[in-house]
Amino acid sequence: MKKIKVGIIGAGRIGKLHAENLINNISSVEVKSIADVFADKIETWAHDLGIKNVYSDYHDILNDPEIDAILICSSTNTHSPISIEAAKAGKHIFCEKPIDYDLDRIHAVLDAVKTAGVKFQVGFNRRFDHNFKAVRDMVQAGKIGDPHIIKVTSRDPEPPSAEYAKVSGGMFLDMTIHDFDMVRYLSGSEVDEVYAAAAVLVDPAIGEAGDVDTALITLKFKNGAIGVIDNSRKAVYGYDQRVEVFGSKGGISVSNDIGSSAVLSTSEGVFSDKPKYFFLERYKDSFITELKDFFEAIEEDKETPVTGIDGLKPVLIAFAAKKSLLEGRAIKVED
Amino acid sequence: MKKIKVGIIGAGRIGKLHAENLINNISSVEVKSIADVFADKIETWAHDLGIKNVYSDYHDILNDPEIDAILICSSTNTHSPISIEAAKAGKHIFCEKPIDYDLDRIHAVLDAVKTAGVKFQVGFNRRFDHNFKAVRDMVQAGKIGDPHIIKVTSRDPEPPSAEYAKVSGGMFLDMTIHDFDMVRYLSGSEVDEVYAAAAVLVDPAIGEAGDVDTALITLKFKNGAIGVIDNSRKAVYGYDQRVEVFGSKGGISVSNDIGSSAVLSTSEGVFSDKPKYFFLERYKDSFITELKDFFEAIEEDKETPVTGIDGLKPVLIAFAAKKSLLEGRAIKVED
Amino acid sequence: MKKIKVGIIGAGRIGKLHAENLINNISSVEVKSIADVFADKIETWAHDLGIKNVYSDYHDILNDPEIDAILICSSTNTHSPISIEAAKAGKHIFCEKPIDYDLDRIHAVLDAVKTAGVKFQVGFNRRFDHNFKAVRDMVQAGKIGDPHIIKVTSRDPEPPSAEYAKVSGGMFLDMTIHDFDMVRYLSGSEVDEVYAAAAVLVDPAIGEAGDVDTALITLKFKNGAIGVIDNSRKAVYGYDQRVEVFGSKGGISVSNDIGSSAVLSTSEGVFSDKPKYFFLERYKDSFITELKDFFEAIEEDKETPVTGIDGLKPVLIAFAAKKSLLEGRAIKVED
Amino acid sequence: MKKIKVGIIGAGRIGKLHAENLINNISSVEVKSIADVFADKIETWAHDLGIKNVYSDYHDILNDPEIDAILICSSTNTHSPISIEAAKAGKHIFCEKPIDYDLDRIHAVLDAVKTAGVKFQVGFNRRFDHNFKAVRDMVQAGKIGDPHIIKVTSRDPEPPSAEYAKVSGGMFLDMTIHDFDMVRYLSGSEVDEVYAAAAVLVDPAIGEAGDVDTALITLKFKNGAIGVIDNSRKAVYGYDQRVEVFGSKGGISVSNDIGSSAVLSTSEGVFSDKPKYFFLERYKDSFITELKDFFEAIEEDKETPVTGIDGLKPVLIAFAAKKSLLEGRAIKVED
Repeated sequence: MKKIKVGIIGAGRIGKLHAENLINNISSVEVKSIADVFADKIETWAHDLGIKNVYSDYHDILNDPEIDAILICSSTNTHSPISIEAAKAGKHIFCEKPIDYDLDRIHAVLDAVKTAGVKFQVGFNRRFDHNFKAVRDMVQAGKIGDPHIIKVTSRDPEPPSAEYAKVSGGMFLDMTIHDFDMVRYLSGSEVDEVYAAAAVLVDPAIGEAGDVDTALITLKFKNGAIGVIDNSRKAVYGYDQRVEVFGSKGGISVSNDIGSSAVLSTSEGVFSDKPKYFFLERYKDSFITELKDFFEAIEEDKETPVTGIDGLKPVLIAFAAKKSLLEGRAIKVED
Repeated sequence: MKKIKVGIIGAGRIGKLHAENLINNISSVEVKSIADVFADKIETWAHDLGIKNVYSDYHDILNDPEIDAILICSSTNTHSPISIEAAKAGKHIFCEKPIDYDLDRIHAVLDAVKTAGVKFQVGFNRRFDHNFKAVRDMVQAGKIGDPHIIKVTSRDPEPPSAEYAKVSGGMFLDMTIHDFDMVRYLSGSEVDEVYAAAAVLVDPAIGEAGDVDTALITLKFKNGAIGVIDNSRKAVYGYDQRVEVFGSKGGISVSNDIGSSAVLSTSEGVFSDKPKYFFLERYKDSFITELKDFFEAIEEDKETPVTGIDGLKPVLIAFAAKKSLLEGRAIKVED
Repeated sequence: MKKIKVGIIGAGRIGKLHAENLINNISSVEVKSIADVFADKIETWAHDLGIKNVYSDYHDILNDPEIDAILICSSTNTHSPISIEAAKAGKHIFCEKPIDYDLDRIHAVLDAVKTAGVKFQVGFNRRFDHNFKAVRDMVQAGKIGDPHIIKVTSRDPEPPSAEYAKVSGGMFLDMTIHDFDMVRYLSGSEVDEVYAAAAVLVDPAIGEAGDVDTALITLKFKNGAIGVIDNSRKAVYGYDQRVEVFGSKGGISVSNDIGSSAVLSTSEGVFSDKPKYFFLERYKDSFITELKDFFEAIEEDKETPVTGIDGLKPVLIAFAAKKSLLEGRAIKVED
Repeated sequence: MKKIKVGIIGAGRIGKLHAENLINNISSVEVKSIADVFADKIETWAHDLGIKNVYSDYHDILNDPEIDAILICSSTNTHSPISIEAAKAGKHIFCEKPIDYDLDRIHAVLDAVKTAGVKFQVGFNRRFDHNFKAVRDMVQAGKIGDPHIIKVTSRDPEPPSAEYAKVSGGMFLDMTIHDFDMVRYLSGSEVDEVYAAAAVLVDPAIGEAGDVDTALITLKFKNGAIGVIDNSRKAVYGYDQRVEVFGSKGGISVSNDIGSSAVLSTSEGVFSDKPKYFFLERYKDSFITELKDFFEAIEEDKETPVTGIDGLKPVLIAFAAKKSLLEGRAIKVED
């Protein structure tokens, strides 16, 4: 079978990860080219992996008629313009989250993709995590009946710098956006209304930068369910990623993945391992699975598992949450 | 040592439970008398337990100069008037929750108790549960540093009848009131502001009766922490009673008590026991401990572990939650 | 209903425990009399509990025609002679384990009980533990198919004194005897052959006293299953009591009961509570249930749940284990 | 840095796995050649992976002066002759377990390796499993003090065919050999004496083939500890791989790895995921780590983590276990 030829735009941490995952795990794909503004810094790495072309200008990828699909892993502000160019060039697109923080620009991407008829997938990798997928599958299979309460615990092991907080768009757009996607994924429903309570408890500098670091976001879903996300920028025991869905026929919950299952019992107490600390370690396999599913969607010409709409909705929820925080009341999510 | 002589007012389910717990477990106490409007129905039971006097009029207990302390286990609307009479009669008082649903009447009780200088304890038994007490003790010991997020899951195994829902004062006053006490207990802080999201998802008849059966109540605490309570009137797998406190130095959580620790692994999956179903079974020991602590407070002349203020505050939070639900915004808790 | 009148012989730790359990929990029974060689030391305690008669000579109980049943809680060497006298006096007998360490004397007890037609139960309380009973019930219900492997972990929190070790009959008769009963209970089969490996690893003084403190006892059952018991006299983390039954259709295991389900996660690790430390705490409810079932057997005239044969068999297994240890080979259990 | 050039001999399931693991995960290594008697069947696969040479005769690898190291993944009877030839050719050797079932031939390999001064590692991959390694590390760090009791549960999900049982050398050499290695690894001590109890409970055809399918093997270690391995050829719930080490200062145990941490609670009970079913899935990462450590030993010229002696000892223990089973008594392990 002819291999799908892929170009990767942006070779930072996530771009490199995707490149290695594709080469090591997805044999139906050939990573032909990679582009990065600091092309010279990645040449040895790319060569060792067997990637033929390293460009400093991503247009070299878009202009290559052999390229079937691209992965956009460059900085956030470039996601939407590159998406639009790529769609026009007829390339299938895997775009890291978020598409953009500007609604008009997101809609422009969605329109361009639709017009071009190319596949488009947003990098909400957590949907592909073994634990969360198991929950979703059981919910979909009706194991808990109608969902009544959706709960997401999402706490980072370490806060970002205050400088990053200033430019990140705020915790809701930068961090909670994954959880907004998760509640849609788990509930199978759109979010109708949001109420956010938040505080600066981890680092005062984050507050001075105009952001929060601890939050509880209450959600009402269109299917009648209610939900809550709790966030902290700093869980000293590691990356805390749990969900629970409760419904008319039961409840499902997941616990954190840990390094080993070893349990030590002594006169001091019973000790077990902490949750995996780093998101790349915790979500390692999900990054592979999301790409497998993207290329399967191309090969079998079916809808991608995380569509452009799935990229848009969490941004709308985040905007409502920000507004709720300012106004101290529940805010409807824009349609 | 001279035994403390006790009278019990009200011999329904909880009055009988307290009588048996005292007689079987607390040897420093003598249950001398019990009063119930249906005195004839409890005579055999009381006799078998060795209780000397069974009255139909509780004044017979209040008028007995030998009685040191009373337990008020009669219907809710009688709690405050009996409390006031008992305080005037110089009896120490253990009063089932709630003191009252009327703030003026609660304050009248608190005043009467203060004036009389008698001990007064409210029956928030969950504080004495082994699991929740362990969490509270670790929080108090600074194990998690400053509390940031308090979470309470409190779901009943079966909904009340719609008829009961009509007269119960609503879910927040009837059921969540225990959780409002729990968040104060766990956080060591007063609640400042409340936002309630709720729905009728379990039984439409409850909605027709003007109440809700599923809720998420977000709380802001005076110490800066935030919290959330999730309630359902119907968890088909049993009585779901869990808490989690997350802070600057870590997190503590508890899981449900289960009937046995037996785990069965077959080709079908891995099966374990459900949470204990009934509150009397789940909280069995806490009902004994709350009484032990009450009588210890009398014997050692120290403050009771659940004071009149502890009885008042959850009612104020419940009122704020009800208002929030009506108005769709966060409501300050009255001081 | 007329209450069963009970006399208790021996008022040490276990005799007192049974007395209190009967009085506080089993309303169909009246503890009329108690006998102890140090009668004067227990008079206040017995009086406070409402026990009418305190004797220094147990014959006063056996000679009381009103007494229906006795509990033998005196020192081990008195179990068999008192059992025989009591049987002749027509009393139902609950006898603490072991019946005796001499096979002829055990058989004499079994004969006397049979001749007299009285009920006889041996105090293997662990059969009545909620966890082990759940395992047994599932095995009996066929949940794991045919049992293939039976595993018992039984470790004490603290070793006995070397002095006690000298007179105890050895670890197999003193401690493992409970586990020999447990494997019969769980497997539903008799033990055919035993191989014991053991060592002195906890306290050299125990070795000098001629005993062992750490052991693995392999068992072959008549139904074809195999099993292993692991014992230690000292598990520093508490009383370690677990079982596992593995079979053709699956496996069942139990974990230890712990003080609270609270789990603390910090930067140092994840900490949970230790197993309950003391056997009276761990097996608290089982001591009540074994008595309930004994008196139910009397009331309903049915076989007791732990018969004389159940008292005999573990002694036979212990003898075989001792012999195996001496000879370094597998030993058949005497029929 | 110059890459280590590797040849793989044998391209069955495990040979292919090692090839893919090396290529995808260990960048310091180049898989230059692979040899298999059915060379034509693997050409496409090898070509797609970028392996230059595919031979039908493994001597082509041994004769290639560029090859630094080989992996022996061919059938068991070829392990020792190829090892000896490879040692003479000066190649470092990673040899799948077992080296041989004949002691003289094992010793010949050990001698050849010693004479040649090449590295030699045996493929006991379970030592590199995250769970077992965590236990070993804690034992080595003294967390449980002196080891007293070592327990290994090792149960396969499905029995081999009776035909395979006939030629496999028996369960002890074929399956338990991993566990014999594990107890040495965990205890840090040699096994002194073995007693085996076993039965045919899974498949009568295995018995007819002269083998057993269920076993308990008791071990005495030279450091005084005792241990037990329990084996079954068929755990219907999946691959059951657990260990426990108990000592003077505490105990450590591990539970099985499962597919997801999702737990479903319904009115029927609480359901969780089964252990991973297949050894390649369960031990996935251990196969990569063992190779990383092998090549690190080459690069840093240090001892391999599983030496020739580590390959020999489990065979000696297995022989003792077989003899014990025949003679019904404990057997010393040959030095």
